Amino acid sequence: MSFQKLDDLCRRLEALEHALAILGADEATHMAVGGGDKRAEAMAMLSGMYHRQATAPEIADWIDAAGKEALSEEQAAALREFRRHHTNLTCLPAEFVERQTAARLRCEQLWRDLRAKGDWTSFQPALEGVVALVREEAAMRAEALGLSPYDALMEQYDPGNRAADITPVFAELKTFLKDFVPQALDMQAERRAKRPLKPLSGTYPVDRQRGLGLAMMEAVGFDLTRGSLSVSHHPFCGGVPSDVRITTRYRTTEFLSALMGILHETGHALYEQNLPQDWSHWPLGKARGMAIHESQSLFVEKQIGRNPAFWRWALPVVDRHLGENWSLDDILPHVHQVERGLIRVDADEVTYPLHVILRYELEQDLVAGRLEVADLPDAWDAGMRDCLGLSTLDNPADGPMQDVHWPGGAFGYFPSYTLGAMMAAQQWAALVRDHPDTDDSIAGGDFSTVNDWRRTRIWSQGSRWSTPELMQRATGEKLDARHFIAHLQKRYGS
Amino acid sequence: MSFQKLDDLCRRLEALEHALAILGADEATHMAVGGGDKRAEAMAMLSGMYHRQATAPEIADWIDAAGKEALSEEQAAALREFRRHHTNLTCLPAEFVERQTAARLRCEQLWRDLRAKGDWTSFQPALEGVVALVREEAAMRAEALGLSPYDALMEQYDPGNRAADITPVFAELKTFLKDFVPQALDMQAERRAKRPLKPLSGTYPVDRQRGLGLAMMEAVGFDLTRGSLSVSHHPFCGGVPSDVRITTRYRTTEFLSALMGILHETGHALYEQNLPQDWSHWPLGKARGMAIHESQSLFVEKQIGRNPAFWRWALPVVDRHLGENWSLDDILPHVHQVERGLIRVDADEVTYPLHVILRYELEQDLVAGRLEVADLPDAWDAGMRDCLGLSTLDNPADGPMQDVHWPGGAFGYFPSYTLGAMMAAQQWAALVRDHPDTDDSIAGGDFSTVNDWRRTRIWSQGSRWSTPELMQRATGEKLDARHFIAHLQKRYGS
Repeated sequence: MSFQKLDDLCRRLEALEHALAILGADEATHMAVGGGDKRAEAMAMLSGMYHRQATAPEIADWIDAAGKEALSEEQAAALREFRRHHTNLTCLPAEFVERQTAARLRCEQLWRDLRAKGDWTSFQPALEGVVALVREEAAMRAEALGLSPYDALMEQYDPGNRAADITPVFAELKTFLKDFVPQALDMQAERRAKRPLKPLSGTYPVDRQRGLGLAMMEAVGFDLTRGSLSVSHHPFCGGVPSDVRITTRYRTTEFLSALMGILHETGHALYEQNLPQDWSHWPLGKARGMAIHESQSLFVEKQIGRNPAFWRWALPVVDRHLGENWSLDDILPHVHQVERGLIRVDADEVTYPLHVILRYELEQDLVAGRLEVADLPDAWDAGMRDCLGLSTLDNPADGPMQDVHWPGGAFGYFPSYTLGAMMAAQQWAALVRDHPDTDDSIAGGDFSTVNDWRRTRIWSQGSRWSTPELMQRATGEKLDARHFIAHLQKRYGS
Repeated sequence: MSFQKLDDLCRRLEALEHALAILGADEATHMAVGGGDKRAEAMAMLSGMYHRQATAPEIADWIDAAGKEALSEEQAAALREFRRHHTNLTCLPAEFVERQTAARLRCEQLWRDLRAKGDWTSFQPALEGVVALVREEAAMRAEALGLSPYDALMEQYDPGNRAADITPVFAELKTFLKDFVPQALDMQAERRAKRPLKPLSGTYPVDRQRGLGLAMMEAVGFDLTRGSLSVSHHPFCGGVPSDVRITTRYRTTEFLSALMGILHETGHALYEQNLPQDWSHWPLGKARGMAIHESQSLFVEKQIGRNPAFWRWALPVVDRHLGENWSLDDILPHVHQVERGLIRVDADEVTYPLHVILRYELEQDLVAGRLEVADLPDAWDAGMRDCLGLSTLDNPADGPMQDVHWPGGAFGYFPSYTLGAMMAAQQWAALVRDHPDTDDSIAGGDFSTVNDWRRTRIWSQGSRWSTPELMQRATGEKLDARHFIAHLQKRYGS
């Protein structure tokens, strides 16, 4: 039976994914520094095995034959998602993938070196090479999927997301934010004039902060029997659903950045830990995509973790672990700080979308050939001046060189961040419609209603629906900017 | 070119070994408890991939064809070891391996439960099943290798080891020890009557003990850029040569057991870290076998780590980390403690060989069919009374049920422990012949001469020679019990 053959294949692929996920997390947390070369070699080899097994020529026949077998509704959904996965994996010739992988790795290595030096001139030719290959890639994916080139790139990260749907939503948000950012900054300045920002500095030993982090993780629903918290240079959520590895990094002079990092990664982890276990080896049982995943991390970090109600519960917990008895009025100005800046990853939730929308606009032009890499510094500077009133013309390292995504060949990924933020706000709004007392529950340290809602609507659905379908079913409506706008107005506008 | 095909195959196999080694070490150190089922599934699947790739039908042809190619002396050695490895791996039919694996796993699981209950009666039938399969296995291996059945089993662990060579050496050692153990115990009692044993108890926080362990590891040659120290329930040395994972466990009331565990595992680690890197993917580049590996761990733990000269250097290091200013006369009676006991893993270096020789004798009889499992408790009891004057008749859990080896189907492995101890003593004797001032170097904290000697003679040789050949070349003579006997007499007889 062909469905069974696919099931066996999925189990083999899951074992390789398991190895790659744990080896990857281990590399960033526990590996000896000198183990890197052999680790890279082993992971490349295992990735090759995965790719060869996942793209073996007989699989297309199995998929077709399985489609004619008597399948349950769930099996049919599993097959549908497998086919989507398989199409995305096989629509590029192996020769092209190798050429592109080499160009991406070379450009990424160069980027690490040249970004530090702010050397755009030496970087430009390498990025041009990557962009040329991405245009080829997009054309091939578009042909195979019957989509426009940019949509075909996004399809890898968020099945069903289309520029035609996203562009008007982003346009509405951008228009709002260009007015709102100066207003929010003015109001912040007024508040601080009345009540100066109280520093939260002190000495917070790593083990105390770790204890606080674990307490918060557990409280918001992280299953500590199926996951752990470690330290790494950049925070991440990795591992496998049965053993989710999240990390943070600590500074002993302040606790908020490590804790917010933990809450963010815990949001990713809750999604992974609550996926449908019976289908864990099939694409159906995996997280839907990058935008939904980001909506889960931002739900915990922004909707819950920066909610004043949350801090009514959290402050005594912080006091218990760190021995600091702050008030809501002390902490909220830090948690809700707004600041114009050049760097996306340092941005707050008000300014962050403007960084993303700029990249979304520029990368569409790059893929379509309407913009060339040589003109990127000017275009970036114009966009930043328009959105945030900041220039990057004499500072390319903090302009178009700041992210790893483009040198790494990831085009169509950036929108996920802001789509995730908007989706999180829309999910929150739907949750509060169903449970108007959510703030009170959270203030009481009770996250069960919130998590039950999310488990039913999002986590348990795995990859059963496309990204827009999942949002529609979870919240009762299409993606709509007004929820995120209302959220920002409520938190930063009064 | 067929040699190149084998080289490519070895690289793929190395990647799978890398994954299995790191996943195995991770399971015992960092995995979340709930991650066990999926981890077991993934590792079984990866082991299956390894086995399928390593036993693919075309490989035999590649080996034959490579033998006709123009090979360097090193390539010829690599091919020879590959052939040996391949023969050992393919001489059992897949159907038999599956049947045996299932019986072993079942018997091991049963053993964990029944050993705790001391229930020999329920355990006996499961062990009988395993022994029946081991007899079949030994017959098939013997046929394929042209060896006697027991030698064919040992060949998996220590190529070239033969019962005809080992039996007289063990007999000499057993005769010596049956007299020597009571003498050593009498002398210990006399010494303690004159100077009572001073307890080394205190409060030693884990991080202090860990700091001491790391300092000792580094001093004796462990490369901390290519390995690390963690905690696990049972100490082990795992990982890969570029990233060797050793572990220990700590008790805060005393420091010696954790430290001795660290020194033992460091001995294994030094071997792994100093294998020939260019051949790391071929059997040639791997450690020779279990007896040689144990000789390396026991060299560091017993020949160095329990040497009074070592403690002249180590005591100030202990003081620096633990703040305890003991004298040689305080510490040596603990380091050299001798005690008759029922349990092999708790035994000291004087009594340990008697435990092993008993198992060596019994397992040969079991494999040959001269002894049946039903008669094992009586035979064990008789052996223990003869060697150590202790009875196990009413206590099978501390008799023939104490080890995991036989339930796990590992017959022919036990001699490695005592062979390792004898080899370590013989290596030490050869080293001291070449460098008579070795004790002084060690007392000065200088381990470079010791390690250079071992690197040249043992570590860099990988699997180039059979176990007896390696010993002959490293020490200039065949395995000879007199070195170990002289070592025990010097340390425990005066």
